[in-house]
Amino acid sequence: MADSQLYSGRHLLGLEGMTAAQIEPFLDLAASYALLSRSRTPPRDALRGRTLINLFFEDSTRTRTSFELAGKRLGADVINMTVATSSVNKGETLLDTAATLNAMRCDLLVVRHAQSGAPALLSRKVEASVVNAGDGMHEHPTQALLDAMTIRRHLGTLRGLTVAICGDVGHSRVARSNIHLLTAMGSKVRLVGPPTLVPAAMASLGNVEVFHDMEAGLRDVDVIMTLRLQRERMGAGLVPSAREFFRFYGVDRRRLVLAKPNALVMHPGPMNRGVEIASDVADSTQSVIQEQVEMGVAVRMAVLDRLSRMRVPA
Amino acid sequence: MADSQLYSGRHLLGLEGMTAAQIEPFLDLAASYALLSRSRTPPRDALRGRTLINLFFEDSTRTRTSFELAGKRLGADVINMTVATSSVNKGETLLDTAATLNAMRCDLLVVRHAQSGAPALLSRKVEASVVNAGDGMHEHPTQALLDAMTIRRHLGTLRGLTVAICGDVGHSRVARSNIHLLTAMGSKVRLVGPPTLVPAAMASLGNVEVFHDMEAGLRDVDVIMTLRLQRERMGAGLVPSAREFFRFYGVDRRRLVLAKPNALVMHPGPMNRGVEIASDVADSTQSVIQEQVEMGVAVRMAVLDRLSRMRVPA
Amino acid sequence: MADSQLYSGRHLLGLEGMTAAQIEPFLDLAASYALLSRSRTPPRDALRGRTLINLFFEDSTRTRTSFELAGKRLGADVINMTVATSSVNKGETLLDTAATLNAMRCDLLVVRHAQSGAPALLSRKVEASVVNAGDGMHEHPTQALLDAMTIRRHLGTLRGLTVAICGDVGHSRVARSNIHLLTAMGSKVRLVGPPTLVPAAMASLGNVEVFHDMEAGLRDVDVIMTLRLQRERMGAGLVPSAREFFRFYGVDRRRLVLAKPNALVMHPGPMNRGVEIASDVADSTQSVIQEQVEMGVAVRMAVLDRLSRMRVPA
Repeated sequence: MADSQLYSGRHLLGLEGMTAAQIEPFLDLAASYALLSRSRTPPRDALRGRTLINLFFEDSTRTRTSFELAGKRLGADVINMTVATSSVNKGETLLDTAATLNAMRCDLLVVRHAQSGAPALLSRKVEASVVNAGDGMHEHPTQALLDAMTIRRHLGTLRGLTVAICGDVGHSRVARSNIHLLTAMGSKVRLVGPPTLVPAAMASLGNVEVFHDMEAGLRDVDVIMTLRLQRERMGAGLVPSAREFFRFYGVDRRRLVLAKPNALVMHPGPMNRGVEIASDVADSTQSVIQEQVEMGVAVRMAVLDRLSRMRVPA
Repeated sequence: MADSQLYSGRHLLGLEGMTAAQIEPFLDLAASYALLSRSRTPPRDALRGRTLINLFFEDSTRTRTSFELAGKRLGADVINMTVATSSVNKGETLLDTAATLNAMRCDLLVVRHAQSGAPALLSRKVEASVVNAGDGMHEHPTQALLDAMTIRRHLGTLRGLTVAICGDVGHSRVARSNIHLLTAMGSKVRLVGPPTLVPAAMASLGNVEVFHDMEAGLRDVDVIMTLRLQRERMGAGLVPSAREFFRFYGVDRRRLVLAKPNALVMHPGPMNRGVEIASDVADSTQSVIQEQVEMGVAVRMAVLDRLSRMRVPA
Repeated sequence: MADSQLYSGRHLLGLEGMTAAQIEPFLDLAASYALLSRSRTPPRDALRGRTLINLFFEDSTRTRTSFELAGKRLGADVINMTVATSSVNKGETLLDTAATLNAMRCDLLVVRHAQSGAPALLSRKVEASVVNAGDGMHEHPTQALLDAMTIRRHLGTLRGLTVAICGDVGHSRVARSNIHLLTAMGSKVRLVGPPTLVPAAMASLGNVEVFHDMEAGLRDVDVIMTLRLQRERMGAGLVPSAREFFRFYGVDRRRLVLAKPNALVMHPGPMNRGVEIASDVADSTQSVIQEQVEMGVAVRMAVLDRLSRMRVPA
């Protein structure tokens, strides 16, 4: 793969194709923001006078709040626009929305959309820097960056690690962004789950191994990344029941010990306790789930700050 | 008509009765805000310490966002209150809302309401300056101001122009505010649409001509202002179908050439492409639709700033 | 009762068990904020750089707006999180929410929840200072503080007063917080309403008298505090009809004269005029209902400011 189509310095639409050299500056800046945040002295002027619009076509209180906090801590004017998808189901209308945002002199546009590629489409029409906050089953780049940052804080590096991504991998934009990032940074990635959720064909993504057996998949890994099982998977017949899923693919104490001692346990939240993860594992000392959220704000500050500096004035 | 009942220096409830001498200072201040906004150096302290409440009884993401941006760029504390009309359908309750706003020391109150006259009613009870952000079928003054500003930027003046307002004129608060403003500023106004939407009696509004034939109505005009056709007009039997409407009253290339060369094409948004306006006309070089949105923020900054200066301290 | 379990200097979860010496500093600071607010010169830096999250599991525009204004006037970054209760009906999830808020470095957390005790549960898990903005039928401490402040401004003291709390007392968190505060401050409290809404057993709360007859209950009181009658009380058969309720328990002119001359009339809002209170009484010179709202912002500024100073840095 040649240069990234998804990161140009100006937009962050996905991590596919990004190199370690492109990813690391985000992690480094985020690390310094995490330190400032802990000491409660955020630099308030990096985005002073800039307008950040959170354009959410899908509701997500957690992600929206994280970006809102990141923007406000950097001094931006933050506007939330939650749009029911029903009124924008035609591509034309999405482009009219882009024109409106340009006219409002939006500097940074954070987009969450149910359709893969919607942020990329917008980025070709708006003057603002676009950050993909999750699009369909495509990517969720800031989630993978915060995951990487959390791992790096605990294990020092991503190089040479083995990371198991478990559960509903096939439908997951979080998984997809993590696969791109982790392989770029030199980790080995295992995708672990039932064949209905982790098709064998995913092995062709490159640098990933597919496991349909949890015990084999978790053996000797450095990081266990669990994913939220969406309830609609059961309705669609991909999973027999929550209880069955937990029995065969839930991360519990018995399986946790198969991984390396002190392997990290991660989850992008919100968790279904007792479905993809046992409660005692989620709350164990190996869990870094809460730290992921904390790193989320720091990573988003870093992304907003860096993209903002790269912006070509309109 | 004598002096305006709707503009007193303190409130902007509508444009009816305002003179050119009263309107022009808003356009002039907005022009300077538009310049500042383009250079991305907004003056941040005009409304520092002031509280702006966006009180929306009808949902409108675009207008609410425009006022929110205007307020934040001037340094105000902006609070959004979206109120379901169901809980305020008694006049009494509207007055209790006014009392609450006074008690909260609201300085600037932006009101959108489905009932004509609701902002005027509130303005008699609140200490804040009230800006009408659209009330029923009555007025939407900031929309007409931003339309005027957009025209003035392109054609230099409003005096002596001929402006065709096309489509669902009879139900439109945007049309009504534009009629008041344009005639006050010395433009000639044509109202163009089917008899069900543009009753012949509207000619009695003064200084306006009614056309039921699009070709005649657009001939040699300087500005074509299209209006959004609400879907409920079809349900009510006022319009046979969207396709029929476009055939007889849509602004397309074929009709555009009837107007003056370089006539401006305007729309208050959001557009129904292929209903009241053809897509290629909306995107043509004669279209200033995106600029209208941009001027919207500048005009609202000017309105908030000027009303705020006129406020008698409580 | 020994020391308060609900106020520790760091959280304000309720007023039960608080002493006059603990309550008065809030009223004193609020009084100074009320003065500043009237002169429109709020001190903007008390919460500069702090993050205030309004976490509302029940919708309440008025209370949310009041806390949002209080936070913004003190310079805090204010984030609104409105959460549908459906997605958080398991206690586990509430704790995961707490973990998320910690990770986001929330300093002040304002919580409204349909379940009594939810703010207390959160306060044991979050690093932020928690303010109870109303929990189930338990408490609503800032409402009682603003009521107390309003009384003190008019009558000079709370000591030795007789206060009648009228109507749906049994289900009311406002009543419960007021009972705790008023008795702590040396007022005598009467609970007045039908046996279905004011069970005789409430007399055992200590320092309160129960009246089922309005005329007897209002005789010679200094303050009449009316409560909103929720419509569901009629559905549940506790009240025959709004009209019947007004006839037997509504505060009208005829009953107002039974109280002391210049007795204060109060209501936490929003009012059902003609149900628990007659319109002319609500708008009479004895009514301080609007002032209650004004004091609401001042009291919340005082609470946020004081709790913020007490916070142990994380």
